[in-house]
Amino acid sequence: MQERGMLIVLSGPSGVGKGTVRQAMLAGNYRDFKYSISMTTRQMRPGEQDGVDYYFRTKAQFEQEIAEGGMLEYAKYVGNYYGTPLKYVNKMLDDGQDVLLEIEVKGAMQVREKCPDGVFIFLTPPDLIELKHRLTARGTDAPDVIERRIAQAADEIAMMENYDYAVVNDQVELAVRRIERIIEAEHLRVPRVIDRYKGMLAHTQAQQG
Amino acid sequence: MQERGMLIVLSGPSGVGKGTVRQAMLAGNYRDFKYSISMTTRQMRPGEQDGVDYYFRTKAQFEQEIAEGGMLEYAKYVGNYYGTPLKYVNKMLDDGQDVLLEIEVKGAMQVREKCPDGVFIFLTPPDLIELKHRLTARGTDAPDVIERRIAQAADEIAMMENYDYAVVNDQVELAVRRIERIIEAEHLRVPRVIDRYKGMLAHTQAQQG
Repeated sequence: MQERGMLIVLSGPSGVGKGTVRQAMLAGNYRDFKYSISMTTRQMRPGEQDGVDYYFRTKAQFEQEIAEGGMLEYAKYVGNYYGTPLKYVNKMLDDGQDVLLEIEVKGAMQVREKCPDGVFIFLTPPDLIELKHRLTARGTDAPDVIERRIAQAADEIAMMENYDYAVVNDQVELAVRRIERIIEAEHLRVPRVIDRYKGMLAHTQAQQG
Repeated sequence: MQERGMLIVLSGPSGVGKGTVRQAMLAGNYRDFKYSISMTTRQMRPGEQDGVDYYFRTKAQFEQEIAEGGMLEYAKYVGNYYGTPLKYVNKMLDDGQDVLLEIEVKGAMQVREKCPDGVFIFLTPPDLIELKHRLTARGTDAPDVIERRIAQAADEIAMMENYDYAVVNDQVELAVRRIERIIEAEHLRVPRVIDRYKGMLAHTQAQQG
């Protein structure tokens, strides 16, 4: 029996550099995983390819997918739909492939409900850690800037609580390495491997019995 | 505020090579962690040192530690006590050090109850994975050997279910690397880091308020 792959959800606040980290992961020489291509209703841009950059669909097609329960997660931004088609993800997982999603926080929370055994990684802005130092370095930031940053930090920390792991994106290659460590470690978690052992045992017992 | 260290419990069935893996971890150049020295009532052997190989104590001293709740875990083997003194472990954790325990399965279950936020790693005999192949290679093992190995495998799989991670000890250096990955990944888990973020936020808010 093929062991099912692991769903890895990379998310985080906008502007944190999710796309850059994802691209570095895909360009790296790490173990096989597949990237889930998103579906969108926005216009294809020059140089983009259907099925490579996105699955480009009409609004009617996208809404039909939603109606049929075909979207793992989706959202509307600036009048266009963006989302993750369920069928490709499921196919890859069934084939034993790990699948990486790089999605917005709201989408990640939709996936969390549908796939609680996924690995949810929150990419953290480095200045969230340095916040204290920055804010205590008096006179460098205007009071309204400071207040806005504190409010934003509170939001980011509240988001983080819904994830399994927090990875600081201080340097892309460091963030990628941390994510790779997380994937390797998650593959060793007992709830993910115990069925394989039990299945093998049942098999050998049946052969002997 | 110093962040509390992480308790790492390495255990597994007897004969799996826990001691060898632990020694390789201590000899390696991985991040700092402290090894918790066990306490015992057995005789000191030539070349051994009190406080290095073990804390050597009399039976009366050991039983007083037990009575005072001073043992994180303990057991009696062949008339002698072996166990982990709580105070040293706590001190190291409070100092922000990760602490490695290498203990028997029964002891690990005692620690599990007292320290549910520890990281529990089960070292797995490689032949548990190869069991199927070995047993299907007809004629190489006597039927009673096969039956005994299957019964033992069932025990080992039942033990494994109480752990967070299963690490196959096929090669010591590979097992060590897997354990290191687990430690690195565990340090990124949200429940372990969120208090630091929240504390920092409370601090900056208080400064601005």
